[in-house]
Amino acid sequence: MYNRITDADIAALRGIVGESAVLTGVEINEDYSHDELGGISRMPEALIRAHSTEEISAVMKLAYAREIPVTVRGSGTGLVGAAVPVEGGILLETTGMNKILELDRDNLTVTVQPGVLLMELAAFAEENDFLYPPDPGEKSATIGGNISTNAGGMRAVKYGVTRDYVRALTVVMPDGEIMELGAKVAKNSSGYSLKDLIIGSEGTLAIITQATLKLVPLPKISVSLLVPFPDMTSAIEAVPQIIRSKVTPTAIEYMSRDTILFSENYLGKKFPDTKSDAYILMTFDGNTDEQVEADMKTAADLCLSIGAPDAYIVDTEERKKSVWSARGAFLEAIKASTTEMDECDVVVPGSHVDAFIKFTHELAKEFGVRIPSFGHAGDGNLHVYICRDNLDDDAWKMTLDACFDRMYKKAEELGGLVSGEHGIGYAKKEYLKRQYGEYPIALMQGIKQVFDKKNILNPGKICF
Amino acid sequence: MYNRITDADIAALRGIVGESAVLTGVEINEDYSHDELGGISRMPEALIRAHSTEEISAVMKLAYAREIPVTVRGSGTGLVGAAVPVEGGILLETTGMNKILELDRDNLTVTVQPGVLLMELAAFAEENDFLYPPDPGEKSATIGGNISTNAGGMRAVKYGVTRDYVRALTVVMPDGEIMELGAKVAKNSSGYSLKDLIIGSEGTLAIITQATLKLVPLPKISVSLLVPFPDMTSAIEAVPQIIRSKVTPTAIEYMSRDTILFSENYLGKKFPDTKSDAYILMTFDGNTDEQVEADMKTAADLCLSIGAPDAYIVDTEERKKSVWSARGAFLEAIKASTTEMDECDVVVPGSHVDAFIKFTHELAKEFGVRIPSFGHAGDGNLHVYICRDNLDDDAWKMTLDACFDRMYKKAEELGGLVSGEHGIGYAKKEYLKRQYGEYPIALMQGIKQVFDKKNILNPGKICF
Repeated sequence: MYNRITDADIAALRGIVGESAVLTGVEINEDYSHDELGGISRMPEALIRAHSTEEISAVMKLAYAREIPVTVRGSGTGLVGAAVPVEGGILLETTGMNKILELDRDNLTVTVQPGVLLMELAAFAEENDFLYPPDPGEKSATIGGNISTNAGGMRAVKYGVTRDYVRALTVVMPDGEIMELGAKVAKNSSGYSLKDLIIGSEGTLAIITQATLKLVPLPKISVSLLVPFPDMTSAIEAVPQIIRSKVTPTAIEYMSRDTILFSENYLGKKFPDTKSDAYILMTFDGNTDEQVEADMKTAADLCLSIGAPDAYIVDTEERKKSVWSARGAFLEAIKASTTEMDECDVVVPGSHVDAFIKFTHELAKEFGVRIPSFGHAGDGNLHVYICRDNLDDDAWKMTLDACFDRMYKKAEELGGLVSGEHGIGYAKKEYLKRQYGEYPIALMQGIKQVFDKKNILNPGKICF
Repeated sequence: MYNRITDADIAALRGIVGESAVLTGVEINEDYSHDELGGISRMPEALIRAHSTEEISAVMKLAYAREIPVTVRGSGTGLVGAAVPVEGGILLETTGMNKILELDRDNLTVTVQPGVLLMELAAFAEENDFLYPPDPGEKSATIGGNISTNAGGMRAVKYGVTRDYVRALTVVMPDGEIMELGAKVAKNSSGYSLKDLIIGSEGTLAIITQATLKLVPLPKISVSLLVPFPDMTSAIEAVPQIIRSKVTPTAIEYMSRDTILFSENYLGKKFPDTKSDAYILMTFDGNTDEQVEADMKTAADLCLSIGAPDAYIVDTEERKKSVWSARGAFLEAIKASTTEMDECDVVVPGSHVDAFIKFTHELAKEFGVRIPSFGHAGDGNLHVYICRDNLDDDAWKMTLDACFDRMYKKAEELGGLVSGEHGIGYAKKEYLKRQYGEYPIALMQGIKQVFDKKNILNPGKICF
């Protein structure tokens, strides 16, 4: 179906990006064959380290003419195989394009190359007294990757998701055409939003080579509140009440004791409290002590009135670090606790978070597996992990399929969707098809064909 | 190219929606041939008053089979001819679908039919202690129309635009298929965002028959501040400084004395102050008096320090009404001041708002026409009106073309876009094509074809 890469292609590619930026065969580290979860893997025929929009355009012109598949990869922190070159061909790495190009203080925007890491952008914004609100757990993901999955993160309750912060994109099309989409403006009603179509398209429609992102002024104060609850239900049921009390927390994270203990063990650091079964961790930000304290007091009083035994203010740097580094390590900690795992990133209406978590507990009992979870209680996005532990190959595959099948059905039944922020990639295609049905999938395929007539850009993902 | 509607079609349509819901010939009021600006007009062959998703689906199945064009119309408050049936055929009116279907207090959403008016939704939300943040000037527009243009409005500075509040849509496709897109969730990374493609597509890709919208808790306090400035430049230059001072106003509107005087004249009501050349009107909202007062004081002190002679707090109901009803009447007031007018709704980076307004003043001098304007200074979206006054047909056409030509070029030069919130419709197609160039327009045409193979839904708009 596709052409394999020839020596002549390699020579031509080296002519475009330079000798040392094209790797082949054993020069390519095995890591490039998979992403963070590792269940899906294939080695690329060539790894190209791109350094500019123009280079990428020239590479795509060649690949398009020669019908060679191209898959773009940032840091490889994905969890659904979206950056795995399942058809071989070229793997185009953008991590070398890691410059912050402009801070526009008048228009509150920052312009970056796609390989800038989320943590680098976050730090740069803060140093300049701004906040880049999207805050996914994986801080070493690239911004290009964040845009490609429409990453959400912890602060979505108050600030929304990555989509809400993308003002403009420079993209390279599968045939090498360079397009500028959007502008440094807050409003846009100028034709179909190609920009919004590319956001969340997991590198299948175009290659993001530059992004202009909206910043907000850095809130002067940010304090967290850790509230223990006797059980998961009472913890989750507190969330809509907190939101309705008008205090608008920046983040509302749900944590079970299990997950906290994994994390303590993994980090070798004590969490402030592990006596209770369930915890809600909230953050409040603002510009005056009075305002933030008033919001926090309202939330704490509310939690205490509905059964929380206590409420801990997390305001010292040390405590903040202990709590948030535990939260940040959940995925790694669960991974370290088992031999292999796979994940489900459904999003359900906030009012059904407790029903979904209870359902996973029942599944775990029924199938005799561990299914730890944590999640963004404030926005209904859950991260649920099925752990292999000591299951053999057949039992693992069967359990995984059966549990996923039931979980995605349950999420749909509760009015939810297949993925809140990790995407569909290769691993979740069947679940997407099952939920949407043929008609919307055919529309997506049609759109893919309009953007990429030869289907060479990240083939085999999302809807194919 | 298209089939004309026959008596058999009318009979079939009456079978679907009922006798009285299908109007033809002289039964159709002339108003249905044009929108608010009126420059583009054509009578439909049949006017259909739809009342449900299922009815619309059945109508579209018939129209698709018979290759009859269908144009959807809400309140007809558009300004670019998007709801004008330029190819004849069926005009499908949705104002009868005006029910608020559900308020979900736990998930902070409201589900409405497309014909609900913005002012009805705003009032309903407030009565229930919520805020629907998008606040375009035209309160009698339908929600379906607001979604179709991705309307922005006054509160975009703090709260964003309509796109940011659309959680889910029910749509009918050109061939009659019914699709549900999105869900009551805050995060979504489940395939290409068909929902975001339909938002802002001006009724060309699918018909919106139901929308689930995000609400926010109603801020307890909302106060406006009216600040006079000696001239337009000093007024506009204050805006980025206000934004950077972290007070985050809900709205920052720019008003010239000219426009205020039109409005006073039109409404027969006095504005609190008309001594200065330029005004900035800001709103601050929040949940405590202290917070709102502190924000307002910061902004007022800043304005006074850079040359504002005064700053008026607009906190009584009476004053609020006088100021905001003047602001709300600007479009109508300018319209009443002249024989005919056409508008330009460009959006430029906030830092270039003064450059653009100055440019329109120079154009007005050069061409000897009046070009009043007002706009959303905080988000760079300007509404500029070229007034015909006593120009004859030829002079009017020439002046209009020449002024538009120069204005759209200037906006592009300043890094702006053709439309901030009014859309492209029929009137602005050439300017969109000129700015984007062939490649992106071909992508839009390709998308249109994927959604609407026979090109029957609102043909002749945006990219065709």
